[in-house]
Amino acid sequence: MIRHLVLFKLNEGVSRDEPRVAEGDAAFRALGDTIPELTFWQCDWNITDRDIAYDYAIVSDVADADALQRYLTHPDHQAAAAKWREFATWVIADLES
Amino acid sequence: MIRHLVLFKLNEGVSRDEPRVAEGDAAFRALGDTIPELTFWQCDWNITDRDIAYDYAIVSDVADADALQRYLTHPDHQAAAAKWREFATWVIADLES
Repeated sequence: MIRHLVLFKLNEGVSRDEPRVAEGDAAFRALGDTIPELTFWQCDWNITDRDIAYDYAIVSDVADADALQRYLTHPDHQAAAAKWREFATWVIADLES
Repeated sequence: MIRHLVLFKLNEGVSRDEPRVAEGDAAFRALGDTIPELTFWQCDWNITDRDIAYDYAIVSDVADADALQRYLTHPDHQAAAAKWREFATWVIADLES
């Protein structure tokens, strides 16, 4: 299994309650039900106010590297990521177990 | 429940196989058995080679904000974080569910 982690940082001046940000959030939340490769899916806003805190995170599980690739290239994922690219940056880590 | 996520980036020129890095990894791995607040604990190296990939990650669960604070201030966690501070930086996100 691969656990695919993503932490997002909103660009300077971008706020969580902007419509485009809410749309990006909604687009990610829908992926857990639409992409069959995802065996676990969690995405949400960070709740802790710290200098090193990012704003939003995804925790997702897939079976293996092939499933991860199919998830990353799935049109719904690509569309959601394109929304986020307009107002945020992100970093990832993939853990194998 | 709070899911506490941490993604670590090794400083420029630091390698995973340096003894101090292996010690930092071992110090984190031990925390899951020594800190009672942790109801789930996973830490490991990233396996994916991407520009946006960080090097190491922790996925941990605690009951609530008080438990998170007890974990963060636990001497074993503080000692492990002090090791990592010598050779890495990190970002976090806390998700509530």
